[in-house]
Amino acid sequence: MPADDTTRGRLWGGRFAGSPDEAFDRLNDSLPVDRRLWPHDLRGSRAHARMLGAQGIIPAEDAASILAGLDQVGQELGSGEFVFQPGDEDIHTAVERRLTEIAGDAGRRVHTARSRNDQVITDVLLYVRETLEAQEGLLAELMSALLDQAESQIDSILPGYTHLQRAQPVRLAHHLLAYVAMFDRDRTRLRIAWAASRDECPLGSGALSGVGFPVDREAVATELGFERPSANSMDAVGSRDALADYLHFAAQLGVHLSRLGAEFVWWSSEECGFVEVADSFASGSSMLPQKKNPDAAELARAKAARITADAAGLGGVLAGLPLAYNKDLQEDKHFLFDAIDTLDLLLPAVTGMVATATFRPDRMNDATASGFLAATDLADHLVRSGTPFRRAHEIVGALVSACVAAGHGLEEASADQLAAAGLDPDDLPGLTARDSVELKQTRGGTARRPVVDALDAARTRLGTWA
Amino acid sequence: MPADDTTRGRLWGGRFAGSPDEAFDRLNDSLPVDRRLWPHDLRGSRAHARMLGAQGIIPAEDAASILAGLDQVGQELGSGEFVFQPGDEDIHTAVERRLTEIAGDAGRRVHTARSRNDQVITDVLLYVRETLEAQEGLLAELMSALLDQAESQIDSILPGYTHLQRAQPVRLAHHLLAYVAMFDRDRTRLRIAWAASRDECPLGSGALSGVGFPVDREAVATELGFERPSANSMDAVGSRDALADYLHFAAQLGVHLSRLGAEFVWWSSEECGFVEVADSFASGSSMLPQKKNPDAAELARAKAARITADAAGLGGVLAGLPLAYNKDLQEDKHFLFDAIDTLDLLLPAVTGMVATATFRPDRMNDATASGFLAATDLADHLVRSGTPFRRAHEIVGALVSACVAAGHGLEEASADQLAAAGLDPDDLPGLTARDSVELKQTRGGTARRPVVDALDAARTRLGTWA
Amino acid sequence: MPADDTTRGRLWGGRFAGSPDEAFDRLNDSLPVDRRLWPHDLRGSRAHARMLGAQGIIPAEDAASILAGLDQVGQELGSGEFVFQPGDEDIHTAVERRLTEIAGDAGRRVHTARSRNDQVITDVLLYVRETLEAQEGLLAELMSALLDQAESQIDSILPGYTHLQRAQPVRLAHHLLAYVAMFDRDRTRLRIAWAASRDECPLGSGALSGVGFPVDREAVATELGFERPSANSMDAVGSRDALADYLHFAAQLGVHLSRLGAEFVWWSSEECGFVEVADSFASGSSMLPQKKNPDAAELARAKAARITADAAGLGGVLAGLPLAYNKDLQEDKHFLFDAIDTLDLLLPAVTGMVATATFRPDRMNDATASGFLAATDLADHLVRSGTPFRRAHEIVGALVSACVAAGHGLEEASADQLAAAGLDPDDLPGLTARDSVELKQTRGGTARRPVVDALDAARTRLGTWA
Amino acid sequence: MPADDTTRGRLWGGRFAGSPDEAFDRLNDSLPVDRRLWPHDLRGSRAHARMLGAQGIIPAEDAASILAGLDQVGQELGSGEFVFQPGDEDIHTAVERRLTEIAGDAGRRVHTARSRNDQVITDVLLYVRETLEAQEGLLAELMSALLDQAESQIDSILPGYTHLQRAQPVRLAHHLLAYVAMFDRDRTRLRIAWAASRDECPLGSGALSGVGFPVDREAVATELGFERPSANSMDAVGSRDALADYLHFAAQLGVHLSRLGAEFVWWSSEECGFVEVADSFASGSSMLPQKKNPDAAELARAKAARITADAAGLGGVLAGLPLAYNKDLQEDKHFLFDAIDTLDLLLPAVTGMVATATFRPDRMNDATASGFLAATDLADHLVRSGTPFRRAHEIVGALVSACVAAGHGLEEASADQLAAAGLDPDDLPGLTARDSVELKQTRGGTARRPVVDALDAARTRLGTWA
Repeated sequence: MPADDTTRGRLWGGRFAGSPDEAFDRLNDSLPVDRRLWPHDLRGSRAHARMLGAQGIIPAEDAASILAGLDQVGQELGSGEFVFQPGDEDIHTAVERRLTEIAGDAGRRVHTARSRNDQVITDVLLYVRETLEAQEGLLAELMSALLDQAESQIDSILPGYTHLQRAQPVRLAHHLLAYVAMFDRDRTRLRIAWAASRDECPLGSGALSGVGFPVDREAVATELGFERPSANSMDAVGSRDALADYLHFAAQLGVHLSRLGAEFVWWSSEECGFVEVADSFASGSSMLPQKKNPDAAELARAKAARITADAAGLGGVLAGLPLAYNKDLQEDKHFLFDAIDTLDLLLPAVTGMVATATFRPDRMNDATASGFLAATDLADHLVRSGTPFRRAHEIVGALVSACVAAGHGLEEASADQLAAAGLDPDDLPGLTARDSVELKQTRGGTARRPVVDALDAARTRLGTWA
Repeated sequence: MPADDTTRGRLWGGRFAGSPDEAFDRLNDSLPVDRRLWPHDLRGSRAHARMLGAQGIIPAEDAASILAGLDQVGQELGSGEFVFQPGDEDIHTAVERRLTEIAGDAGRRVHTARSRNDQVITDVLLYVRETLEAQEGLLAELMSALLDQAESQIDSILPGYTHLQRAQPVRLAHHLLAYVAMFDRDRTRLRIAWAASRDECPLGSGALSGVGFPVDREAVATELGFERPSANSMDAVGSRDALADYLHFAAQLGVHLSRLGAEFVWWSSEECGFVEVADSFASGSSMLPQKKNPDAAELARAKAARITADAAGLGGVLAGLPLAYNKDLQEDKHFLFDAIDTLDLLLPAVTGMVATATFRPDRMNDATASGFLAATDLADHLVRSGTPFRRAHEIVGALVSACVAAGHGLEEASADQLAAAGLDPDDLPGLTARDSVELKQTRGGTARRPVVDALDAARTRLGTWA
Repeated sequence: MPADDTTRGRLWGGRFAGSPDEAFDRLNDSLPVDRRLWPHDLRGSRAHARMLGAQGIIPAEDAASILAGLDQVGQELGSGEFVFQPGDEDIHTAVERRLTEIAGDAGRRVHTARSRNDQVITDVLLYVRETLEAQEGLLAELMSALLDQAESQIDSILPGYTHLQRAQPVRLAHHLLAYVAMFDRDRTRLRIAWAASRDECPLGSGALSGVGFPVDREAVATELGFERPSANSMDAVGSRDALADYLHFAAQLGVHLSRLGAEFVWWSSEECGFVEVADSFASGSSMLPQKKNPDAAELARAKAARITADAAGLGGVLAGLPLAYNKDLQEDKHFLFDAIDTLDLLLPAVTGMVATATFRPDRMNDATASGFLAATDLADHLVRSGTPFRRAHEIVGALVSACVAAGHGLEEASADQLAAAGLDPDDLPGLTARDSVELKQTRGGTARRPVVDALDAARTRLGTWA
Repeated sequence: MPADDTTRGRLWGGRFAGSPDEAFDRLNDSLPVDRRLWPHDLRGSRAHARMLGAQGIIPAEDAASILAGLDQVGQELGSGEFVFQPGDEDIHTAVERRLTEIAGDAGRRVHTARSRNDQVITDVLLYVRETLEAQEGLLAELMSALLDQAESQIDSILPGYTHLQRAQPVRLAHHLLAYVAMFDRDRTRLRIAWAASRDECPLGSGALSGVGFPVDREAVATELGFERPSANSMDAVGSRDALADYLHFAAQLGVHLSRLGAEFVWWSSEECGFVEVADSFASGSSMLPQKKNPDAAELARAKAARITADAAGLGGVLAGLPLAYNKDLQEDKHFLFDAIDTLDLLLPAVTGMVATATFRPDRMNDATASGFLAATDLADHLVRSGTPFRRAHEIVGALVSACVAAGHGLEEASADQLAAAGLDPDDLPGLTARDSVELKQTRGGTARRPVVDALDAARTRLGTWA
């Protein structure tokens, strides 16, 4: 019988001669990555040990020793006193190694009816669940900041763009609420990922085929907050669907943050000038003394590519893997943790950037004062008098051409120009930006009433988040 | 007023001089891609025109002419008689052009209170919804084929693998049920994407800010089967979330099909020989007369990368786009349609491959007859006699080493070898594959009872699909 | 002996009973994709047949019949007379089937000492080579259009941006030459991919192990324009490196086109107004009569995500495939052809957009007339008088803050403001945009001389392209 | 004048009031990522300062102080004594801050005629170059290990597979040489990336437009080992092409390592048994005492998805970015460093795994002893007697069918079976694996002579690496 079960990297030893090669050890070592899982590993081990004791699979006193030992391990890890050893190839090994040092043979019993395969994925699911609960709060804060700005800017009107060309005037509040709508859908995805992460408890699946002891899987699942024990052991240890669901949520949220970031970059250009990012969310230049750069917005724009790559990367690792567990699955954490950390950094920074930004209604007014933002309203006006829309569109198009050639906007169209286009100069609708937005009265439109309604609805909905 | 509103590519003309450049035209032309949307475009236009008439926004007789005209357009498109014109830059343009030829000024009124921006995304959502409803059926057929095979092979036992090394014996039915579990989760994702595709009706959002007519958005939404009109016009025309949800579903399903494909490739190798793909799902070699290649399985393995790339590609297009509509969004259909077509090809082929495959229990028996598949059961046996698991693991590890050195499996371990490992040769558990699987009795395990239970549950669940 | 070797999908038949399943057939059918390879398939078969005849592996008269038959097949394919049959699962099968109809037993000899595995990759390499030669011309035209615009705008000065904030003035020519520099590197990548595509000729590798006939591989390689026959048969049929090199070229070019597209979108906004895209490269809106959208620029911006996805997708298909040929490799063409087609559409459209764009030096002048673009020059001025740069940077930073607070640009700084910042109002450098650009005299800088030098060098370099 | 230029995160201060927000600071802080660049930052600063002194842009004694100060900074960083301060937002800031503490006003002069924009990309290029030089050595060691194994196994013959079905026998050496051929192409890509990384020196490009001092760019470029100064300042600070070239090299190498990994996983299955990974490159199972898992091979298989994602991610960040520098570019290092670190871990581990693996010619013999590996040779035999290949293929196909039905291999075909297929039992070729491989005599084939030639050529080529 091996005297020493803590040979470097060979806790599970037995059939192996010698030590692992150093190059292999470096490649195989996942401790720097999975170390963060220690609270979840302890939580899972506690539930497992308690059940083993309750079922009489291990002696009750051993279960108690394990629980006490895990407390001590947790205290050491929490306080930073824990000393990792060279053979600790992952956090699970480290915890069991230390537990055994503390609790002796009881520690050697904690892995009864368990495999690292079901243990690891359980830990990760607990961590994903906890992460999502925290990130739901971060997301709510961002939405709240957007709603605050929208509320305070309810009467600011700026150009709405399609193809980055001025198209029609919109309320700034309406524009910001578009992002609230996106983030609201992201919250739905968050809840879906959360449900996926707590659906089935893998513990009890063993290495791949189940376990040979009368475990109480329901008890473990309940204690750990899962809906139920997993239905198929091979699936439980070999699938990473809940992580993919997390990454889908994260990637979509990343895309929305990226669009909001791009919007702020564009709005804060001197050319637009619709927003000024606070000094505390901007940076300067090492060479250009005058620069004030909207770095947070740019980083928000850039990070979507990173999270999208994480999601695709996980797909790439999983594709083509036969069942059940393959070491390739260890790469899942790289993608998952990178996306989590990225959102943890990004969400508060974007929230802060939004909350502290100064909008510039004066610049918005300048940008909507003249031009062609009312062209569609003019066409609609003709439609109301009976002209088929397609013809009205052409008529106004021709008028726009004439104005462009003459170098002015619609608001300066001469009676001759209007008449040439078949318009009655004495029967024109109001063409200001405010006139225009107030025409869009139905649900989802940019007039004051539907926007106020939408703001209220969003507030209410946000308020109901638990 | 322009005399001819069907200038090549310039239906919307007015402010443009001349024709588009040919190179631009080729780049901009989306008709070959979006042509498939014609039934959904007609459906959307019908609902829109009916509402315009009902609200008195256009004359009732014009609404009737439009509906009749759309019927004719639909008949022409359905029968293949429809003649596309050079200026038909997309299916929406083509339909309106033809409608106007048929219905005159009534046709010129169909686009009142509508933009291509809200029209396109409505059409796409209708198409996604319809696709998902069809693909749910395809997925059910695949699951049904797997359940049939599982049922008929309930007592076949083969090696379960981790790291592609034989680990523990499992029932083939258990192994196949792992895929059923994956596909069941994919169906959940399908339902989520379906709900996303029918949540909000974009029609009525106009180009970006809403519309200037008293449209009845609820009526249109209801007729088109959406839950409600969209809450924010800029979001409605500029977001592609439901497509991303579809692609997430498709990518995850792709990954699972890829794993099943890899499994069949591996099982159908001469080395395993656990399955033989039917002649009707295999292909030969142009040079090697003896070859029978599991092409369907290989293509299933390969296609996940394609769908994953589609999902990542859509994310790449969307990232960093300020609101509201940008032409970049036109690329969404490339990724969406490619993923849809890929699944439409793949699902029936994989279903057929599974349904017609011949499993080889004899080869499975050979593969489980000797070796070390019972090693954990032996360790568990020691645990039951009081040995801590970690020590039991080491003891059996040492015994395995001895057997490997001696060139035989556990089942041939001599009394001396057993004794050297501290095992009592007279108190050994059964070590056959059947003994082993029957030890895994809890939910999710591979013993006969839980597998039969899981089969029944899966059947029931599948039967409840609408 | 089978009487009919053209059973649906079973040209290679022999060991197969029955026909392929229809679902499998649809999945397996690559003809719609690989049909475009017919000229290269014929070219490869000609070289192969000629060599077989010359080496006496097949009778000389059979070689002649094959060559004549291939001519006829080519004539039929070129003219559109060729009738594809249900069993033609790919272009290679179709050609051999038709050749055999024409040339009888001679046709049945063309596949001697050849496999579809070495045949397919040879065809694809010939196609990639031809594509690259054509795309080098397209790329040269784009660079030429940029050089023409740069030359005609040599004295136009606009703001250069970092973080989309005005940073320092630059010559428009300098800005455009930055893209010429990127495309010049893309041409290097194009040449690298071209060299990779014509390095080793796979023909003669057989299915995977070589061929059992005294083939003259050098002769075939030479006739087909390769450098040499491939060095390893398993590598030759199983690798897709040259395609990956093509996709790397395409993806990088795509990124550069995307950046140029984004630049044009930004410059053509009303806010910038530095460029106006020609009517022939713009499109209108179905609802907004005034819109003129830079669609070509937006599509250029969007397509990079598509090509990047293609490159990643191919990597995903190849990863984890053991040797030698696997059916998965058939998916290579999806990614390759999509990238090729995308560039074939995009390059001429972007070239046309650039060539026909109207730049607006007046708007550029407006944008550089006031503000803080000269801040660094002012700091540099202090440095020249002995102030350490970091202090000079701070001094000018404080001055900028004072000007911002006072609501004017550097050019309107009062003597008091200057003095407060420690600047001597009587010893200030010129602060106009022209002053600023002329300070950047070293290679790569934006002063007139280095820009003219760079233009000349780019012209010369472009002129030397074959 | 600001008294303190080391305000938290605001070294460049001047126009900013207050401190950055903590959330922004965390997001913006790149020190943990770019810290590794310190040696390259010092190297670049040394060359820059030396040039500034030589050109008289700063006093010679200040240049000397800077050089001495940089030596001290380097000593502190190298020894771990360096104390980072809260305001050190990146390594470049940290170095200048410390330098200024040491050298006072001389330190404040080091950034004369330089921007972080040209500084950062110069540092990164130096680091990429150095990395590639080191990884070329790692790659050579891997190829050397493969050649050693190939040489020692020159007469081992195993089944070659297509579609993972046994196709034709090949020499193990031939199979391993296929990987050598792939890695040889990767080395070409490595050299291309290396040339790209040392082509143009960005220093002297300033923030984006060049610098306003008479810098000697050639001197700096030469000292830093670049071919020449960059030709366009905006391109130099805004492009990341050399990083993309690195990632292309890394992704392709990753794909090849992934395939080799998959091969080893497959070969080391009990089903194949062609190779046994050394204990020092395998790991055990926490639950299954008998397991010996080829973890290094699995991780090699998995990591390709990670590097492919890195490459795609960088493309995603760059796409759609207008010139010149945008903060988004800071994300480049995430992808670059992750790929570099992955290869640094993977290459030595795969080399060690290959070098220490034990091949099992006995298992290979068993696998080639019977079956249908000689089917093509038999068809070729008929061809040599005048049968057209396509007919010969069918004849042998029918014979294979008969043998399969009768449950034996080709080598046991009865005279009746042979005669029924039109074969003369008295005129059959040798059908052993050795007979088969020896028929493939031309370049690239698997007979002994061409394989020995290929081995020699590969050795020679490897030997010529510098």
